[in-house]
Amino acid sequence: MTTNEKIAALRAAAKAAGADGVMLVTSDPHSSEYLPEHYCSLNWFSGFTGENSTLIVTAAGSALWSDGRFYIQADRQLAGTEIESMHAGAAGVPTVEQYLKDHLKAGQTMLTDGGCMPAALFERYGAALAEVGAALRSRDVVSPLWADARPALPDTPCFLLSREQTGANADEKLAAVRAELKKAGATALAVTQLDCVGWLLNLRAHDLPCTPLAIAYAFVTMDRCVLFLADGRLDPDDATVLKNNGVELRGYGELLDFVAALDCDETVLVEKDSTNYDLYAALQANPHLTVKSGADPITALKGVKNEVELANLKECHIRDGVAMVRFQMDLEQALAEGRPLREADIDTMLHRRRAEQPGFDEESFTTIAAYGPNAAMMHYTARPGADSAIEPHGFLLVDCGGQYDCGTTDITRTYPVGPLTDNERRYYTWTLQCHIDIARAQWLDYCTGFALDSFARGPLWQHQINYRCGTGHGVGFMGNVHEGPQSLRPRNEIVFVPGMTITDEPGVYETDEVGIRIENELVCVDRGENQYGRWLGFEPMTYVPIAVEPVLADELSRAQIDWINGYHKLVYDTLAPRLTEEERAWLAQKTAPIGR
Amino acid sequence: MTTNEKIAALRAAAKAAGADGVMLVTSDPHSSEYLPEHYCSLNWFSGFTGENSTLIVTAAGSALWSDGRFYIQADRQLAGTEIESMHAGAAGVPTVEQYLKDHLKAGQTMLTDGGCMPAALFERYGAALAEVGAALRSRDVVSPLWADARPALPDTPCFLLSREQTGANADEKLAAVRAELKKAGATALAVTQLDCVGWLLNLRAHDLPCTPLAIAYAFVTMDRCVLFLADGRLDPDDATVLKNNGVELRGYGELLDFVAALDCDETVLVEKDSTNYDLYAALQANPHLTVKSGADPITALKGVKNEVELANLKECHIRDGVAMVRFQMDLEQALAEGRPLREADIDTMLHRRRAEQPGFDEESFTTIAAYGPNAAMMHYTARPGADSAIEPHGFLLVDCGGQYDCGTTDITRTYPVGPLTDNERRYYTWTLQCHIDIARAQWLDYCTGFALDSFARGPLWQHQINYRCGTGHGVGFMGNVHEGPQSLRPRNEIVFVPGMTITDEPGVYETDEVGIRIENELVCVDRGENQYGRWLGFEPMTYVPIAVEPVLADELSRAQIDWINGYHKLVYDTLAPRLTEEERAWLAQKTAPIGR
Repeated sequence: MTTNEKIAALRAAAKAAGADGVMLVTSDPHSSEYLPEHYCSLNWFSGFTGENSTLIVTAAGSALWSDGRFYIQADRQLAGTEIESMHAGAAGVPTVEQYLKDHLKAGQTMLTDGGCMPAALFERYGAALAEVGAALRSRDVVSPLWADARPALPDTPCFLLSREQTGANADEKLAAVRAELKKAGATALAVTQLDCVGWLLNLRAHDLPCTPLAIAYAFVTMDRCVLFLADGRLDPDDATVLKNNGVELRGYGELLDFVAALDCDETVLVEKDSTNYDLYAALQANPHLTVKSGADPITALKGVKNEVELANLKECHIRDGVAMVRFQMDLEQALAEGRPLREADIDTMLHRRRAEQPGFDEESFTTIAAYGPNAAMMHYTARPGADSAIEPHGFLLVDCGGQYDCGTTDITRTYPVGPLTDNERRYYTWTLQCHIDIARAQWLDYCTGFALDSFARGPLWQHQINYRCGTGHGVGFMGNVHEGPQSLRPRNEIVFVPGMTITDEPGVYETDEVGIRIENELVCVDRGENQYGRWLGFEPMTYVPIAVEPVLADELSRAQIDWINGYHKLVYDTLAPRLTEEERAWLAQKTAPIGR
Repeated sequence: MTTNEKIAALRAAAKAAGADGVMLVTSDPHSSEYLPEHYCSLNWFSGFTGENSTLIVTAAGSALWSDGRFYIQADRQLAGTEIESMHAGAAGVPTVEQYLKDHLKAGQTMLTDGGCMPAALFERYGAALAEVGAALRSRDVVSPLWADARPALPDTPCFLLSREQTGANADEKLAAVRAELKKAGATALAVTQLDCVGWLLNLRAHDLPCTPLAIAYAFVTMDRCVLFLADGRLDPDDATVLKNNGVELRGYGELLDFVAALDCDETVLVEKDSTNYDLYAALQANPHLTVKSGADPITALKGVKNEVELANLKECHIRDGVAMVRFQMDLEQALAEGRPLREADIDTMLHRRRAEQPGFDEESFTTIAAYGPNAAMMHYTARPGADSAIEPHGFLLVDCGGQYDCGTTDITRTYPVGPLTDNERRYYTWTLQCHIDIARAQWLDYCTGFALDSFARGPLWQHQINYRCGTGHGVGFMGNVHEGPQSLRPRNEIVFVPGMTITDEPGVYETDEVGIRIENELVCVDRGENQYGRWLGFEPMTYVPIAVEPVLADELSRAQIDWINGYHKLVYDTLAPRLTEEERAWLAQKTAPIGR
């Protein structure tokens, strides 16, 4: 089927259902960041392979919205189809809401799969349509049309993490969640995000790319916890463990019926931004249930790592550090030998070294290896056959991470691979200053992510350079590489507390010239209390040398130089016991103090 | 009358009015920061001379709440009276609300002068009393008891500022206010704060200490503006000017009757935190009026200085800088000659030099001259006879400012008056780093006072030192030395825009050891737009050398050293043309570059 035929099929399906159009969004029932292919219907119907998109098909036409990262790709992939390419946010381009209002009229109906759209978004589009007297109705017209070609829902083997890995059993976590529900004035919680289900029940699988989670829901009340998971995915021993932790098991598809049949009065806390509309509607429809809108308390609980998780993360980062050291030695050797290297080779080289480490499972996201100007594209992915050669000058940016049996990592280094321009040195130095200023920040315990984010940007702002993204994000524990609620980002209102982990990844992205990013993970630590209050700071969790050859040391303050030297001593002392003599000698050079 | 007799009189007056108690707060009808003595009833009845206080008298007893600055003073001044001294905010001390609930019961009534209490506060106390079935009623029982001893309401001559001074006539300002009212969905505004009335109509007088404002109200609708001002205070020419700007004149006391008699439908914008309860109640009582709660738009308009005001402020700061240079030369000479100096002498020395300057009117606040450990008390005032001698070691902190015919100034310098301890040098250096980091900050135009405040504290936070106050506040134009809405302060949500002025005054306050503060005024300026957005920064408005002898230059970054050298060059170049040769030579020394 061609794209136009697929769109025509959607149009016909809408008509057959008595409706006037269909809309598809990049989403799954769990608001996952990376979707299983089973849910990539928008990509299949449109031929567009990017993320974060919306497709609208009406009798009059069809249109697809892409964000700034994907404008060019969308134009190219939609060329020759009937689908209009909409650059979301660009001047003169209607929003999805505006388009809906312009193309539907009173009495008409749009269809969408409410099981794959967050309730808040469903209500927003529904409200836009209501303004012109039209309506949005939940109906899955996609599945019948896609049936043959559609990838199956993943059902990889599930497994439970031990208390030695996570520091808390499911019953302890359930107790913590129930305490939060009580504070929020609720008696029940629909747990819909896969990382939240995974954290709550220490449940993992390999259903998603790069993310060891299982497709499942949980429903928690003050005396019950029901896990909705496809049959046969848990081995009997794990099922017994869960049962002993007070967890009942139901089939994955039984959630809506279960919710409809609940006959105890409950106040159900629902996070409308992540709960799919069909589930939300089912909760609303049951007269025994009062739906209370609010943040899923698991997100906040999960964001603060406990002592056991932190100890495991340390081990995880040591292993990752050893792999990164060996990768860098391989890279330097290849460059020294003049071996032709392409961006796509980097992932292979990295994977080899990570795979040598005990407990390594898979990459925590698709490796970004971007040479020269390619690195200015923040979300660049080198594809074999369409990647660049690494030339013997400028920078190679490598952003990567691993999933281990003791945690998840995320790291970026920007390697000089030959002579540098003055601008490259300057940008690198200012980026490093930003990185250091966050890493060595110390603050009173009322500071939000917004306040700390401003600290971070100071050195680049002095030169009227900014990066159009947050300075950092939380990282899951054997989970999503991006998680909240904390983040170093303008307007983030979350107050930092000890145990939160965060990436520190400022950068410079000069179009067609250069991209630089230096990223460590940090953990927020308590620095004690005095007459002024409670002091907090960060400690590095990443143990990998940061290239100092590009640094204009004169631009650094004494405190910044002290930080880099102290950090490098920490890296050497931590990794040395795991390295060979040759590797130790190499690392000693890379971590030698700089200064004036 | 003794204090106890006065309290007994209040108690009897309550009883005579059929009520069960009286409460007084430090406030006037205009929510002024510095009160005319006419409104200092709390001080007169209690004998307590501090600020920001509450007095409650019931049949069972009486109590006075003071804040942390005044605990000791209140204990001393209330000793021997029946009034219980309450340390507001201290552990175990009931709040005013709790005390009201503990001491009143169902059916009982407290009285307060609602003309001297903001509506929001009146409602808060009323709500607390309502919880126990009691009530708060507005009634002035103070005036009859205080009549003989009470200072008269000030009625100094009023005058109008010219367009050359303010950059905008009253009719232009009225147009701007009406545009804001429209945006806020209102048609009328009760202008109650004296600086807002003064800004709106370019009206000034000398009714308040250190603040050239007139006691007056204004009431603005879309086609009227009424000024309520005591008869005979404006000369006929000025009255004509106002009339030509569309301003009607009424007696100061006619406001409540005017409001009651309004018979056009209006939506009146009211800032409940600053509008007194009696006025608020009168607005509520008129069925033609809809009261809409919101910020007085004049505060935001006034906070952004126009080009003319900025040009005048520059001249004002040059004059103030010349006075400060001459004062410092006088000080150094006195110290060199070994003349005995006391803190209270400083104000005299400063006044002499400021008074030599053209257009000088009065101090903009009571000079703070604090030697050594006295400076650790943030609100210390040296009183002749109870002040300290300035010894030939350590620091002298001088915080002062002037009202001129071209603006208002606020400046702090901390002078080394002899050998310093290592701690003194360190604290001074870190304070200077904080000062510089704000002064040289550059940021994208979404940053709030909170975000910038965190920049400022970084260097002191590195050493786990904080100052328990904002980093800076707005300054009026021939008005209040403290004004909003912008401020450098945790949680301040106001976004900076060009034309806002702000003080930059970080400090170290180590009890019984030392107090250090370095304060300039800054103006927010536009630094142009590029691909990342609109850049903003600050420029110094204050032209006075900052002592560099105490600085540990090694602690400063190159950028910080560059800033201090650049600032000192600006000071020299700006002041030199107004100085004698001897003064220029002195200033050249004081502003000589430092470096490494």
